Amino acid sequence: MFVNRMPRYEILSPDAMALLDAGWRRLVTEIGVEFMSERATALFAAAGQRVEGHTVFLDPEFVLEQVARAPRGFDVQARNPQHSIHLGGDSMAFGAVYGPPFVREGDTRRDGTMADYERFARLSQSFSVLDSAGGVVCEPNDTPLDSRHLDMTLALMTLTDKVFMGNVVSGENARDVIAMSEILFGGREAIEATPVSISLVNCNSPLRWDDRMLDALFEYAAAAQPVVLTPFILMGAMSPVTVPAALVQQIAEALSGIALAQLIRPGCPVVFGSFLSNIDMQSGSPTFGTPESGVGLLCTGQIARHFGLPFRTGGGLTSSQVPDAQAGYEALMTLLPTFLAGANWVMHSAGWLEGGLVAGYEKLVIDCQLLEMLQHEFTPLEIDEASLAFDAHAEVGHGGHFLGAMHTMERFRTCFYRPFLSSSENYERWVRNGSQDTAERAGTIWRQRLEEYEQPPLDEAVRAELEEFVVRRRRELGD
Amino acid sequence: MFVNRMPRYEILSPDAMALLDAGWRRLVTEIGVEFMSERATALFAAAGQRVEGHTVFLDPEFVLEQVARAPRGFDVQARNPQHSIHLGGDSMAFGAVYGPPFVREGDTRRDGTMADYERFARLSQSFSVLDSAGGVVCEPNDTPLDSRHLDMTLALMTLTDKVFMGNVVSGENARDVIAMSEILFGGREAIEATPVSISLVNCNSPLRWDDRMLDALFEYAAAAQPVVLTPFILMGAMSPVTVPAALVQQIAEALSGIALAQLIRPGCPVVFGSFLSNIDMQSGSPTFGTPESGVGLLCTGQIARHFGLPFRTGGGLTSSQVPDAQAGYEALMTLLPTFLAGANWVMHSAGWLEGGLVAGYEKLVIDCQLLEMLQHEFTPLEIDEASLAFDAHAEVGHGGHFLGAMHTMERFRTCFYRPFLSSSENYERWVRNGSQDTAERAGTIWRQRLEEYEQPPLDEAVRAELEEFVVRRRRELGD
Repeated sequence: MFVNRMPRYEILSPDAMALLDAGWRRLVTEIGVEFMSERATALFAAAGQRVEGHTVFLDPEFVLEQVARAPRGFDVQARNPQHSIHLGGDSMAFGAVYGPPFVREGDTRRDGTMADYERFARLSQSFSVLDSAGGVVCEPNDTPLDSRHLDMTLALMTLTDKVFMGNVVSGENARDVIAMSEILFGGREAIEATPVSISLVNCNSPLRWDDRMLDALFEYAAAAQPVVLTPFILMGAMSPVTVPAALVQQIAEALSGIALAQLIRPGCPVVFGSFLSNIDMQSGSPTFGTPESGVGLLCTGQIARHFGLPFRTGGGLTSSQVPDAQAGYEALMTLLPTFLAGANWVMHSAGWLEGGLVAGYEKLVIDCQLLEMLQHEFTPLEIDEASLAFDAHAEVGHGGHFLGAMHTMERFRTCFYRPFLSSSENYERWVRNGSQDTAERAGTIWRQRLEEYEQPPLDEAVRAELEEFVVRRRRELGD
Repeated sequence: MFVNRMPRYEILSPDAMALLDAGWRRLVTEIGVEFMSERATALFAAAGQRVEGHTVFLDPEFVLEQVARAPRGFDVQARNPQHSIHLGGDSMAFGAVYGPPFVREGDTRRDGTMADYERFARLSQSFSVLDSAGGVVCEPNDTPLDSRHLDMTLALMTLTDKVFMGNVVSGENARDVIAMSEILFGGREAIEATPVSISLVNCNSPLRWDDRMLDALFEYAAAAQPVVLTPFILMGAMSPVTVPAALVQQIAEALSGIALAQLIRPGCPVVFGSFLSNIDMQSGSPTFGTPESGVGLLCTGQIARHFGLPFRTGGGLTSSQVPDAQAGYEALMTLLPTFLAGANWVMHSAGWLEGGLVAGYEKLVIDCQLLEMLQHEFTPLEIDEASLAFDAHAEVGHGGHFLGAMHTMERFRTCFYRPFLSSSENYERWVRNGSQDTAERAGTIWRQRLEEYEQPPLDEAVRAELEEFVVRRRRELGD
């Protein structure tokens, strides 16, 4: 996985941070946070917090005490140990897009299917820059609704040997994922010792945690599986229109969710989540890769570090309908700040199109290209006598060229990052090769990757047990 | 013009800076710098530097003494005072692409013409985010070679009222530009009091300054017109393959050129220039928007500040042949670091395609979109009680939405930056509107801008005098 040893770009002054700090404290104290779960409110009440109906009025100091129980960082094991990750510190892990009902393949936009889901899982396995296929890479709309979490989890576990995300549609679904994780990793004890999944629990912003996701949170936290507590904020709709207000709300929501996780199981691994963009105030449409979201992202990193928590934000977000120039620049408008902020867990890293409604095959390739470039860019320079290359100047002289210099010959194979998608062909050669734009070249690449894909090995007994579990549970669910 | 009050992103440690500092000192002392001009070597010899043939072996302390004579920042006046700029400190000024022989308009790539040149000048006038059309926005290949500098300068002076760049093909050309500047601004004294042009003098890297550009430097420096002394480095060809070596070379070249400018006219305004990317080591093609160039750019800003000099770097660079996803992400891979580094003078900000061989109409629009987004992103947040919007939460409550909240109503018109090119239309609407990708929308925008373009007013006597000058000089030049 990638470790970002470059400096963080921090833009909040101590005064600004103090104002944000006062802000979330006032919110949780005076407005409170709604938890649509009796189990949740009961836990808060038992811990001495004031509860009125579903609303919990939180003592900020109590919240911080709970937050302090969360680890500053933790490992998540993949079934291939080479793909295990650390969440926290300078580590950055990347997952594919999560949630789109549609897919785009070239000029075709259509409903996602299980075949698409499996192809995206294979591609996520194939691109080394991705640490995870994520969870719902696309909705497999052709599978039965009640049991598709089983199909998706099985695909993630068998087609990839990377870290996977857990289903959060209900507590029951979460229990299924945990049961399958126990099969894959050898029992409850093994997955509690080092977690094996990451799950996304979104806040119904502003300031409300819904029951089904909380049920999932209860299951995962009890099993010591990390949960990403994510305020889902499109500024102007789910928060006030000002970035500082959104940041304050984000802190209140994330910390209140994290406090609950710590009440469920003290010390359980959690991630400070952020999904922060804004709407177009004329149309109401969500917009991505915006200046406001970039600024919010940078602040989020600083805030998460302030509370000593691993954090999730960023991704290759765009509003664009197709993998065009806008898709390229909006994705990078989020991904580059993601690296500047040093986000630990980056969902939607690859494949996001059309505001997250579409998982794009070509876009996935484009984003993987961006991730590789950024990982190279955010690798510190080595500066020493050899890299200063004085002798090369003595060899080449004024106005010469370095193509054949000894210093060059020793390094030319590895000195520069070589992109797999971007073209620097001269015009004539580019025309001879078919005048393909980036999206067309990306189409060739993902098809080739699928052809070359090899399924990672898995113990046959384990595979059989997973498949039996899926068959049994599907029957029980009536699908 | 834009003032970047966000923090700078600096990645060089003091130790690293000390190594780079030792590096350039050794280069200028032991390898020396070639100046292919007797006037230049004579000035260095007279100032006590060792000269052998064209090579000047420089005492680093002498270089720093000369550099210290240069202003840390200076104004450049435009004929419309609202478009005057400051170069230095937190100020950032942006010019269009410079130098392409070809243009791209939609699917057509062809030789640039004077009509293209004038259209690009009008577009540069039209987009408020550009402070200058630059100089050679494209080569007007259908005009006579010896006198086209007159046509270009006249177009810049009459079709725009912004800062313009001077021609550097020869000393004679430079004298013509200065003469025309005197006509436009009311005499030599006026343009010496506050400069009116910026000129680009490139080093023939490694470590050689050529005669024709030096002749231009002599003219502009003598007239107190700012010159951007720019090492032109594609790592692997014009410098060693390591970024630190390129940085050291860049310092040696830029400072040696700046020292010469100060010998010509002590105190004359100069800019520490950087044009730094790398070649593809397999094909030899120049590549842009690369991780290595991004790192080099960030370091360049820090280095220029170390020497107390305004600096030029960055731009919307790309190798892409068309305004596609690669063009979008590569442009931003350079432009975003340009803002992080706080570059003062940004050439090639808009319109650059195909490694700088092509000026693209659609690409110019895309880049102007990026510049606007970045200017918004690099504007510090205001964080105060009002922006924290506590009352909006009290009004909206848990799980509500803020679309109709008082706090929103007061701010919705201006709260978020609204892009002019990016689309966030929902899919059905986007299809109804013709399924246009970003490049197609950009095509509509530049055509509309040209239709709406209004030539900035100019005193008729001045215009007549400029035109007479051009006619007379063209005749003298035999064209």
